[in-house]
Amino acid sequence: MRMTVSLAECSYDIILKRGALGRVGQLCDLNRKVLVASDTGVPAKYLKSLLAQCGAGEAFVFEAGEAGKSVEVWRQMLCRMHELCMGKDDLVVALGGGAVGDVAGFAAGCYLRGVPYVMVPTTTLAQADASVGGLVGINLCGEADLAGMLYHPCLVVADPDTLDTLPPRQYANGLAEVLKTGLVGSRELFESLENQETGPHIERLLYLALRHKISVVERDETGKGERRLLQFGQTLGRGIYLAGMLPGADAGKALLYGESLALGMLPMIESRTLVRRTRAVMRKLGLPLRVPYPAEQVMACVERQKAVNGDRYAIVRVKQAGGGYVETVDFEEVRLLYMGE
Amino acid sequence: MRMTVSLAECSYDIILKRGALGRVGQLCDLNRKVLVASDTGVPAKYLKSLLAQCGAGEAFVFEAGEAGKSVEVWRQMLCRMHELCMGKDDLVVALGGGAVGDVAGFAAGCYLRGVPYVMVPTTTLAQADASVGGLVGINLCGEADLAGMLYHPCLVVADPDTLDTLPPRQYANGLAEVLKTGLVGSRELFESLENQETGPHIERLLYLALRHKISVVERDETGKGERRLLQFGQTLGRGIYLAGMLPGADAGKALLYGESLALGMLPMIESRTLVRRTRAVMRKLGLPLRVPYPAEQVMACVERQKAVNGDRYAIVRVKQAGGGYVETVDFEEVRLLYMGE
Repeated sequence: MRMTVSLAECSYDIILKRGALGRVGQLCDLNRKVLVASDTGVPAKYLKSLLAQCGAGEAFVFEAGEAGKSVEVWRQMLCRMHELCMGKDDLVVALGGGAVGDVAGFAAGCYLRGVPYVMVPTTTLAQADASVGGLVGINLCGEADLAGMLYHPCLVVADPDTLDTLPPRQYANGLAEVLKTGLVGSRELFESLENQETGPHIERLLYLALRHKISVVERDETGKGERRLLQFGQTLGRGIYLAGMLPGADAGKALLYGESLALGMLPMIESRTLVRRTRAVMRKLGLPLRVPYPAEQVMACVERQKAVNGDRYAIVRVKQAGGGYVETVDFEEVRLLYMGE
Repeated sequence: MRMTVSLAECSYDIILKRGALGRVGQLCDLNRKVLVASDTGVPAKYLKSLLAQCGAGEAFVFEAGEAGKSVEVWRQMLCRMHELCMGKDDLVVALGGGAVGDVAGFAAGCYLRGVPYVMVPTTTLAQADASVGGLVGINLCGEADLAGMLYHPCLVVADPDTLDTLPPRQYANGLAEVLKTGLVGSRELFESLENQETGPHIERLLYLALRHKISVVERDETGKGERRLLQFGQTLGRGIYLAGMLPGADAGKALLYGESLALGMLPMIESRTLVRRTRAVMRKLGLPLRVPYPAEQVMACVERQKAVNGDRYAIVRVKQAGGGYVETVDFEEVRLLYMGE
């Protein structure tokens, strides 16, 4: 399946197809200097497959997880590109999940003020969400994506076969993004999640999620309008996610980002029936249904982000499946939504 | 004097006026969180004047010179912005020469994927050149501007009074950029340099240089066409500049960037008469007339940059004052131009 993202300054294709990883070289020119960036969480066979398709491919593998999205990894990657004497027409390939796309995309966007990069997302989360939109960046001072830019790939190749090697919890984690997209913008997608098994229908589910995200990004590339709807669940979800990283928190219990996001969506749904249906979908997908941290800790983490977002919160609420809207509220209202009155 | 730079996605004004430093607060809103970035080469009184105009201004001062354009300074500046809880509508002010504009502009461009910044250039070089164009970045792996982006300021305030405190050599160094602009695109400007004293006419000379650069950048924002003319002198000039930084080179003898650039322009002028006239202008401005390094060292530094620019060099040649054009040649031809046959 080929989809096109048409933006003001550039357009690029998303190829969503089983087996596509083995055909990246047919989809774009790999007969130039290519640096394939990846992390230690990505199975070696995928990296090997990609490098075998390159004329002169080199690998840059860094530590998996948020720790890899650091200034130091970004700097090392830029230096590696410099060592390889890469020029403006050479290529970066980001092979992996969201973190790889973020740091490799940011390095590609900065190197000589921008060289092309191809995204090859290998997680459900990255295939459903992170591969569209061009938001790239690194963590700094303990803040996620504190430094970054808007820089689009020249091609995205998403191969659902690569999801077979994902641990089940990581697989479900990415489906939270699909669920978000359904709730906020696509009733068809939400009902597919309710009524179908995800495994055999994953390609169709990813297609619906991507199609919705593409249409939103095309209408609002810079994120000042409609694109804010895609932040559904983030205000509380980020707070929940960060609460799991507090000093003293039990790292074994920490929720993944998608899991946190799904839990952050629930209080933002205005219909009791839809909350019930959403919880049923979450149970079916294997997503957690309870936040394992004290509510005060979560709210403290929500508030800590406040300054960066200004004094008020743009939250997204959902009335019915596929019907999200943005509302600006103060902290107290967010707290009431989360903790009840 | 107010000039407007009109680009596809944004427009901004350049205010060029004696005494303008004391009126920045009237030209833009300083009643928000403001981080004034500057370096140790900028007189303290300018920083004091700016901070006094801010409602809640903080200073970020780093080491002067190319050493300040580092990943570490950039990271520290981003962390400082984060400590101050700066948001998307707060402001960075870059007060100083080209290096300050480069690193502070790059930090502003990356912080939360972009916050506004105002440039207040205080050197001849920055007022004539670096304040227009939006090229920002830092040095990495010993390579100038290896990481960077295109990110335009929301306002430029150039106060020629600030040039009074510049050491004479720094003052002349920036006039090399004015000379470049005259040679490549404005006969009027070149002849003004020939026939007038720079001191009393500096405002007019800067105006002509800026006006030319603005018109070029407006027509070719991304630098794929006409804007390449502004790289006149760079191929050899960067080689000369880098030769002064080689291990074992006498740091006391190292040429400044503008000085190197002027010397790099001479072999690219095709008319003997114009070479003679250009040398006369350089002498008058106080620019050096001889390269103090062995030609082989310079050419080695030119060649070292080759890979990043591809296998061939886009050089700019000048037939008559104001008449530059781009030519693509190989290394051997560059060598012949510099060393003779």
